[in-house]
Amino acid sequence: MPPKGFRASAVAAGLKYPDRLDLGLIVCDNFQASTGVFTKNICQAAPVIWSKARADNARAILANAGQANAQTGSEGMSDCRESARQTALLLGLETEQVLLASTGIIGRRINTSALLAALPKLTESLSTNGFGDFARAIMTTDTVAKIAESEIIFTSGPKASVWGAAKGSGMIAPNMATMLGFILTDAAVDPGLINTLLKDAANSTFNRITVDGDTSTNDSVFLIASGASGRAPITKGKDSKSFEAALFCVMESLARAMVRDGEGATRLVEIVINGAKDSDQAQKAARTVAESPLVKTAIFGADANWGRIMAALGRSGAIFEPYKVNIFLDDLLWVANGCDNGKDQEASQIMKLKEYRILIELGAGKSNYNMFTCDFSHDYVTINGSYRS
Amino acid sequence: MPPKGFRASAVAAGLKYPDRLDLGLIVCDNFQASTGVFTKNICQAAPVIWSKARADNARAILANAGQANAQTGSEGMSDCRESARQTALLLGLETEQVLLASTGIIGRRINTSALLAALPKLTESLSTNGFGDFARAIMTTDTVAKIAESEIIFTSGPKASVWGAAKGSGMIAPNMATMLGFILTDAAVDPGLINTLLKDAANSTFNRITVDGDTSTNDSVFLIASGASGRAPITKGKDSKSFEAALFCVMESLARAMVRDGEGATRLVEIVINGAKDSDQAQKAARTVAESPLVKTAIFGADANWGRIMAALGRSGAIFEPYKVNIFLDDLLWVANGCDNGKDQEASQIMKLKEYRILIELGAGKSNYNMFTCDFSHDYVTINGSYRS
Repeated sequence: MPPKGFRASAVAAGLKYPDRLDLGLIVCDNFQASTGVFTKNICQAAPVIWSKARADNARAILANAGQANAQTGSEGMSDCRESARQTALLLGLETEQVLLASTGIIGRRINTSALLAALPKLTESLSTNGFGDFARAIMTTDTVAKIAESEIIFTSGPKASVWGAAKGSGMIAPNMATMLGFILTDAAVDPGLINTLLKDAANSTFNRITVDGDTSTNDSVFLIASGASGRAPITKGKDSKSFEAALFCVMESLARAMVRDGEGATRLVEIVINGAKDSDQAQKAARTVAESPLVKTAIFGADANWGRIMAALGRSGAIFEPYKVNIFLDDLLWVANGCDNGKDQEASQIMKLKEYRILIELGAGKSNYNMFTCDFSHDYVTINGSYRS
Repeated sequence: MPPKGFRASAVAAGLKYPDRLDLGLIVCDNFQASTGVFTKNICQAAPVIWSKARADNARAILANAGQANAQTGSEGMSDCRESARQTALLLGLETEQVLLASTGIIGRRINTSALLAALPKLTESLSTNGFGDFARAIMTTDTVAKIAESEIIFTSGPKASVWGAAKGSGMIAPNMATMLGFILTDAAVDPGLINTLLKDAANSTFNRITVDGDTSTNDSVFLIASGASGRAPITKGKDSKSFEAALFCVMESLARAMVRDGEGATRLVEIVINGAKDSDQAQKAARTVAESPLVKTAIFGADANWGRIMAALGRSGAIFEPYKVNIFLDDLLWVANGCDNGKDQEASQIMKLKEYRILIELGAGKSNYNMFTCDFSHDYVTINGSYRS
């Protein structure tokens, strides 16, 4: 059940895919505070530019799948404004209060006349039961809709919860690549604190996943608080740990779902680096292993080729002594002091699992980092060899 | 025809692959000078550690395919010394004059008893006709042997030439990843200059290619001069331009052959960045585009999805204005001022070619860089999902 104070809907506007939901709307009827985090790619889509400037006043978000409206110049910006304007008119809001999110092919304008024509039906069908449809409408190569929710464990007072929906699939990489996330809560949050909370949660969830290392022009994650629970706003210290825990729980669940549903992915693998010299090196080591095509194809084939992990670590920029490295597959000591530990057969068995963990002890210091990655499969190549078509 | 002063041979030692050449030897009978460049991976294979310390005295090089002898600890180093020692005995050289190169699975020791048993036959069969066999012996997933040669165009005096053989295929990336290169010349080269010449040539050839962005533990490129042409040593200025041109020609030809024969590759694409702010940014932009899995799968599918190139540029770290970018496919203006130029059909036709060029004008400055890349195909996944087995 999504938190109180919101409604959602979706329609098949015919933007790209025939006869499927491709346009969704979330409205916050009882607005209290909002914020967003956006792609760090310097090629930013028109809806990113639009929403970034208005993220603290997200009364409604209109999201489409099919075209990214990126690298579409001033025409793309005009399309944004017109979509927001007409949505606002139908909802009785200001144009500036309607935010936008798009996913799909870069360089293509949205079929704005089809979008505008679909708006009356979209706004009329808004309901507190529309969130499942909304989550389906934002899918591109996703195979399942991604939704998560968590109650916030307060010690007293009215209950509240966090709900989230996301789309992912390809171009998933640190810095959020090609993902859209919509996080809603009926808690109230200090407007001065809400952005920090979302950023911190994104850094430990969405920014730690990778499908292919590519980063999109359209990443956007929104957090809207309705305050409809009737609780006083969360401030630093006061209830903030409880809220952070629920936010993390929802966003990590969505992050894992995105990697599990990465384009063509058959396995979800957590890469954990322990004992790096500093946090930057821990992150570099984790990321290089998680993004290595040779590691990812070995994961696909359950090929117990630990040398590829060593090779990736060795080019990552992290400083360590090769013969101090231990590598575990779940609890199996696979590589001991940088050398083979005679566990090929056991390792191959673990690598056939759908989900497992590769834990790497660098033995160079005390910094840790973790990431989630998936395998590179034949289907990844098939999907991305003809995505545009 | 390889240059004068060298002999080569190869045998099937049964190290990994049954009944195929897997152990090769090059001997310089008339040694004048030598040098090497090696992987920057901090996990360095035993033969890299061995050869790096002795690169200026390469009277002979023993090369094997099948096991990389990387992450094999002190046992791997003992295997190196023993292989060099016995080869030296048979050739009447010092142990320290025999260099080593290995390619294959990381973490596996070489089957040294099989290797040692094959040495008498290997040394007996040395001949000036053995270079083709040598080039075949170092192949792993390579599908063709890679050989190139070029005459050095001097204005007067005795003729001389440059010859090279290489193996590549996977883990090819800037910084030479998983490649072995053997460059021979019968020119004489000032020993104080030879390393600079090889480094410069590697920077503009082997360091500009990528198959999968991975970097191996075993990369080694050797340059040996026999001086058997009878020419005076090349010094800075004196004949050095002529020599550099021939060296570049041979190494670039090998570099292109490696990418063309990248694991599963079906197309060879040159990525050219013009107009970057500085040379570091030019290189980052070229490398990010050349290594992007989404760009590489689009190249495989001949899918004219230029947005993926923009997205890669935008996350590369290069600074530019998205709406000043032009992208050409060969001579076709595909993307004009960051926007679609209505040339999808023509672009798709070019992308069906086996070889073409993607030229990107960033419009941010005067620095340029080029790289060679290939596509990510189904076969790449197949080859690397079960390489070890």
